[in-house]
Amino acid sequence: MATVERWLLPDGIEEVLPQQAAQIEATRRQVLDMFAAWGYEFVVTPHIEFLESLLTGAGQKLDLRTFKVTDPQSGHLMGFRADITPQVARMDAHSLRREGPSRLCYAGSVVHARPRSLSRSRSPIQLGAELYGDASPAADIEVISLMLATLEQAQIADIHMDLGHVGVYRGLARAAGFSAELEAQVFDALQRKAVDEVAALTAQLPKELARMLNELSHLCGGRDVLDTAKTVLAAAPSDVLAALDELIVVADALMLRYPHLPFYFDLGELRGYHYHTGVVFAAFVPDVGQSIAQGGRYDDIGAVFGRARPATGFSTDLKTLVSLGQQPQVVLAKGVWAPAGAQADLWQAICALREQGQRVVQALPGQANSDAAQAGCDRQLVQNSSGWHVQPL
Amino acid sequence: MATVERWLLPDGIEEVLPQQAAQIEATRRQVLDMFAAWGYEFVVTPHIEFLESLLTGAGQKLDLRTFKVTDPQSGHLMGFRADITPQVARMDAHSLRREGPSRLCYAGSVVHARPRSLSRSRSPIQLGAELYGDASPAADIEVISLMLATLEQAQIADIHMDLGHVGVYRGLARAAGFSAELEAQVFDALQRKAVDEVAALTAQLPKELARMLNELSHLCGGRDVLDTAKTVLAAAPSDVLAALDELIVVADALMLRYPHLPFYFDLGELRGYHYHTGVVFAAFVPDVGQSIAQGGRYDDIGAVFGRARPATGFSTDLKTLVSLGQQPQVVLAKGVWAPAGAQADLWQAICALREQGQRVVQALPGQANSDAAQAGCDRQLVQNSSGWHVQPL
Repeated sequence: MATVERWLLPDGIEEVLPQQAAQIEATRRQVLDMFAAWGYEFVVTPHIEFLESLLTGAGQKLDLRTFKVTDPQSGHLMGFRADITPQVARMDAHSLRREGPSRLCYAGSVVHARPRSLSRSRSPIQLGAELYGDASPAADIEVISLMLATLEQAQIADIHMDLGHVGVYRGLARAAGFSAELEAQVFDALQRKAVDEVAALTAQLPKELARMLNELSHLCGGRDVLDTAKTVLAAAPSDVLAALDELIVVADALMLRYPHLPFYFDLGELRGYHYHTGVVFAAFVPDVGQSIAQGGRYDDIGAVFGRARPATGFSTDLKTLVSLGQQPQVVLAKGVWAPAGAQADLWQAICALREQGQRVVQALPGQANSDAAQAGCDRQLVQNSSGWHVQPL
Repeated sequence: MATVERWLLPDGIEEVLPQQAAQIEATRRQVLDMFAAWGYEFVVTPHIEFLESLLTGAGQKLDLRTFKVTDPQSGHLMGFRADITPQVARMDAHSLRREGPSRLCYAGSVVHARPRSLSRSRSPIQLGAELYGDASPAADIEVISLMLATLEQAQIADIHMDLGHVGVYRGLARAAGFSAELEAQVFDALQRKAVDEVAALTAQLPKELARMLNELSHLCGGRDVLDTAKTVLAAAPSDVLAALDELIVVADALMLRYPHLPFYFDLGELRGYHYHTGVVFAAFVPDVGQSIAQGGRYDDIGAVFGRARPATGFSTDLKTLVSLGQQPQVVLAKGVWAPAGAQADLWQAICALREQGQRVVQALPGQANSDAAQAGCDRQLVQNSSGWHVQPL
């Protein structure tokens, strides 16, 4: 690689310069402080670990998204985290082993070998929260509310919410006795709302079950969809009806809390189907093709770490929040410009100002007062007979 | 890998549980705020990039420490950052291209394929600051002072400082006309204070030059070593004497600022010789074999990115600071325990408390007031005829 190219960054990998970095740091602190105010405890997970741990219960997409290397110490295959959720689940299941509910949150970079879509970063800063140990809709309501509070904190406008529940399709597929392959085929056709394909794939099933599976493609829209579903799926197995009731409880609680937020329901679109076990949700904004924050229930994730616990959570990307949010630019308080020099009394004056919370930039040899503005200073430290004083520049 | 092993972490890779994570986050914020108070701007560099960029000017040690993967997008070799310094240098040289001095700082995880020593983490959180665009000792003095302020902020006790200057040996080696191989051999012998080897390797040189190279092994100790060096190296080339004078200016300024701190000088020990170009420094504490914070001048690093600028900086590991520091444990303010339920007035009462900066943990269905203590709450939200109120538990 020639010298001229050394500064090139790979596609989808960004560096963050001071102005945007200040914005990211400010939002990071605000959101983590809010997580703390909701009772969520901050944790830090490793950037690299054994591949088997990282890919727990996550399915093929995460596998393809994960960079792999061999550990020179152990010879085992390792991966760079492409998702933090399975790591936090391990912490809950193995390291913390608490009796009651556990609320954990995190903020850290992940790396994607392949981006989630062509326009997406391969180095997002994943920010999220997880609630373990409670299987009730109350936990889903809390986590979705926290996600919406996070988006509000970042001043994201024009949000709309998608809600679904993987238990509806999963229960019907189980009743149909689908093979794993057929379950995947019908699932795939439902995602694409390929009505004819779903009809063909379910043609051999008992008529009532086939009808309900075919109806899933049409069960999307506003809150009334859930009432329609109650009627259309009235003959479904009890686990399907229980899933629908859970979704209704969550939806109604959220619509009460956020009366002006558009909610969209889709019983056929099954975000993270292989991973999730209950309510799934995502937030969108206009003109951004992908969800900007998403999550759902994934009750079985802790099992491979020795302890299955109910779990629900959400994640988002701090860089996306900052780029889409309408937060005012972080403006540093103007600083004090100190003259060059290593003498003891000057040093003490500088230290005293910094201890008072002032930003003090000391001139380097050869710098003039005219360099002070570029350093963000509007005052200067000057010496008179009684010592060092701050005065306007 | 069997289920029972899935929770295993690789050697030297740690997860950070809530209590320690709170400590790390608190120290991170304090140090970054202090960096800002000194005029240093925060930047965020990528975790992965093209290998050639990452290893710029860094030498073989960093190469061996860096995990490598092939980029599926470009086919180029990429590395996971094992050091953030070269990335920040690229930012200064290529992305920012400022005229005057530039002060940048960062805090982020790095990953080491091989640890810096057997006892060391392979996943430190590197924290550091860099000052570009000034070649004078004033910049070195500022950066070393900032490093000491960082250690003080983290409440690290019993620090002692090592100072040296790679220009002393480099100037003598140049005068001796060493081949690259011989320069490396003598360098290696000096590091080990292998006096006989140095004597043998320099036996063919002019007597005076050989004497000075051999004296380097003995030029270590307190401040008087620098005076001895002035005498012993009086006949050295002018660049050697200039290096020595630079070191004396830096040493005297620091010893004035930190009169109680033990300073140790070693003109033969050349930390980061291949990387550094001037003053080099490191901080140690008793019973820890390696330096806990270190840095130096590395003026040529930006050249491969299109712009050679003077540069000096330091780095440390946030995890090490927290584990060695004597900071009081972060104690969360006690919170308010809210009853379970999704009713609107309860939700509004919870939101109002959180907006006031209170931590409010809402009970999940089935939780009793006896669970409040575990959630760190000492008060509760209760309803009476006039609405929701906070009262002691």
